[in-house]
Amino acid sequence: MKNLPVSPLAPATFPTLPSVSGMRASASRIGLYGGTRNDLLTVVFPEGASVAGAFTRSATRSADVEWCATQVKQGHARALVVNAGNSNAFTGPAGLAKNAATVAETCRLVGCAAHEVFLAATGVIGAPLPPQTVADALPNAFATLDVPNWESLARAFSTTDTFPKGSGATLDLDGTTVNLVGLAKGSGMIAPNMATMLVFVFTDAAIAPEVLQAMVSAHVETTFNAITVDSDTSTSDTLLVFATGGSGAAAITSHSDPRAARVSEALRGVFHDLAMQVVRDGEGAQKLIQVEVQGGADDRSARTIGFAIANSPLVKTAIAGEDANWGRVVMAVGKAGEPIALDRLAVRFGGQWTAKDGGAVPYDAELVDAHMKGQAINILVDVGVGQGQAIVWTCDLTHGYISINGDYRS
Amino acid sequence: MKNLPVSPLAPATFPTLPSVSGMRASASRIGLYGGTRNDLLTVVFPEGASVAGAFTRSATRSADVEWCATQVKQGHARALVVNAGNSNAFTGPAGLAKNAATVAETCRLVGCAAHEVFLAATGVIGAPLPPQTVADALPNAFATLDVPNWESLARAFSTTDTFPKGSGATLDLDGTTVNLVGLAKGSGMIAPNMATMLVFVFTDAAIAPEVLQAMVSAHVETTFNAITVDSDTSTSDTLLVFATGGSGAAAITSHSDPRAARVSEALRGVFHDLAMQVVRDGEGAQKLIQVEVQGGADDRSARTIGFAIANSPLVKTAIAGEDANWGRVVMAVGKAGEPIALDRLAVRFGGQWTAKDGGAVPYDAELVDAHMKGQAINILVDVGVGQGQAIVWTCDLTHGYISINGDYRS
Repeated sequence: MKNLPVSPLAPATFPTLPSVSGMRASASRIGLYGGTRNDLLTVVFPEGASVAGAFTRSATRSADVEWCATQVKQGHARALVVNAGNSNAFTGPAGLAKNAATVAETCRLVGCAAHEVFLAATGVIGAPLPPQTVADALPNAFATLDVPNWESLARAFSTTDTFPKGSGATLDLDGTTVNLVGLAKGSGMIAPNMATMLVFVFTDAAIAPEVLQAMVSAHVETTFNAITVDSDTSTSDTLLVFATGGSGAAAITSHSDPRAARVSEALRGVFHDLAMQVVRDGEGAQKLIQVEVQGGADDRSARTIGFAIANSPLVKTAIAGEDANWGRVVMAVGKAGEPIALDRLAVRFGGQWTAKDGGAVPYDAELVDAHMKGQAINILVDVGVGQGQAIVWTCDLTHGYISINGDYRS
Repeated sequence: MKNLPVSPLAPATFPTLPSVSGMRASASRIGLYGGTRNDLLTVVFPEGASVAGAFTRSATRSADVEWCATQVKQGHARALVVNAGNSNAFTGPAGLAKNAATVAETCRLVGCAAHEVFLAATGVIGAPLPPQTVADALPNAFATLDVPNWESLARAFSTTDTFPKGSGATLDLDGTTVNLVGLAKGSGMIAPNMATMLVFVFTDAAIAPEVLQAMVSAHVETTFNAITVDSDTSTSDTLLVFATGGSGAAAITSHSDPRAARVSEALRGVFHDLAMQVVRDGEGAQKLIQVEVQGGADDRSARTIGFAIANSPLVKTAIAGEDANWGRVVMAVGKAGEPIALDRLAVRFGGQWTAKDGGAVPYDAELVDAHMKGQAINILVDVGVGQGQAIVWTCDLTHGYISINGDYRS
């Protein structure tokens, strides 16, 4: 595996994050990277902890994703076991055997039920591991559980990430301090390994599983499901949110609890921040691109148009070239297959309209050029049909992407 | 505009093509390239010539495409006027005015009705031309009409193509020789111009418009609509087929005429050959990739899966790297959103299965490596559900693509 240079869009440092009461965690080594780095994240939660999640919609998703998607419906979590270096995707019966052994050993060490154990994996696909590979490493991992060292934990399940990703929030809920911390990896892919997006968020609030799941479902579409690097979808994408209850705050058991809205908004902020960090670490990314679509037939239609733009190689290479090529944006709008009013179509780069009412308009080239030279590019498209709107994010398409994914022999 | 090196996948020479009786054509200059090259193709057909076509499904398609899509329904053609250097897309009322002037002048010169005039344009979008731009060049163009010089005609409407594209066929229909010739451009895109795919096929058979349209519709899905370079869709894609009747063969007025099947098959061959040439001239293409999907729920489903693979940047960069990365193929299958049987999924590169029954299988690495080093890559995927099948074609994704589309300042 190559050591990639840190993304130019990376934050200067890993953020300072609060503690999350009630959980203990460890970063340790299975040896999937030849013992050169940590590759195992282990977390235990107190009895009564709840969990909610969202998963890749791929039809070829990994054994770990299938496991979590089933168990999360019961809403209770006592342990999380994550490995890097092997995704356990497309591994058939061997993958199921590995998971069974891992779950059994975790249950033995924690004293919990199988449905309270959550698994995730990232790395090479189609390479079955011996069933005991993870299980055998667990006694040592559980022996070193401690108060979380967030940056160390984030690094333990990263693969081709060029920087570790974390985000946090602190709330005062009726006099009780509640903390949230999220960690993420993604979304690089590097030969011959397939990487992915894994996100784990922890809070010491106490939240009933169905309330927590509603929060996750409410925010995932506008955050993690609103980003794209290259239109390719991992077999392993996993988002899990755990609520330990360790803060001592009274449990939130209803959507109508006024504290639910505040926790939900904080959760959304953590999701958004992590999603932006994932895009900023897109392979070869030099610019973060926000695509906003207004005037769609409805929000879904606006979102489809937004992704047609954000996934267009011609739009993404133009932005890499610092060119406000609104013609390519018009092309991408056209191919989306959604209702538009061609004679009202308008495109804006930064604050400058470059096309309006279905045609080119004069604009201040100096202002547009200055915007295009920056690291944060904003494209606004109005398709002139209705009130639908959406925002999606992506990065530009550069030689770096080709080098990372195609230059195997360099 | 840069002069690109000729694609390594180009044919050695422009093919030797037969004459098509009954049509006359010219290649001449409007001056959209500063007079440095031809940029106008003009063709006249005899009375009674028929026409059929297929067009881009983009919602932002050009004024020329809208014109042709309407007129082709009447099925009669007397003239074709094509310019390179300006696509007349996203030009609003100015684009309509230019087309009206061009049609009026053509009608005057040819002595025909407006619905018998067909227009196409390729080049920069969103840059309205003065209405007389093309019309003023027509008297000179029509004065030089002659027996077709196919290569010269193909070059007259090329833009970023690195080689001119032509294909032909000759049939003996009950003792009468009938010829077909097709010319194409595409599908490069270069800053700040948007190129496109234009295809014109001419035959001296006599074919009733509805029979000709049925032939076009039957074959376009498996040829021109089965290729992709970068998933982006032009605003100007146009396919027009003209039958002059100049061969003297009796008219084919029914699908049940045994000669219809023979002409149809020859037409399909010309379509296929031109479609492959377009992919071979994909920007930065080093390899022609055939993706065959079997075992789909139905043909449409297989086709969707095929395009998910053919449009995957991760698959295309892997092939650029000469890596039989079947894991990325599995990923692309998974994201297609179509029914698959994961435990029966199989992937073959060249003649070698690399995955079967949902998991990796041992294969002869030497044979696979040799295949991957070639210029023609074959991927076969069986998704194990039903009898649906499809073949699509694409090219690999290389540094050349990024350079052509993003390196504006080099």
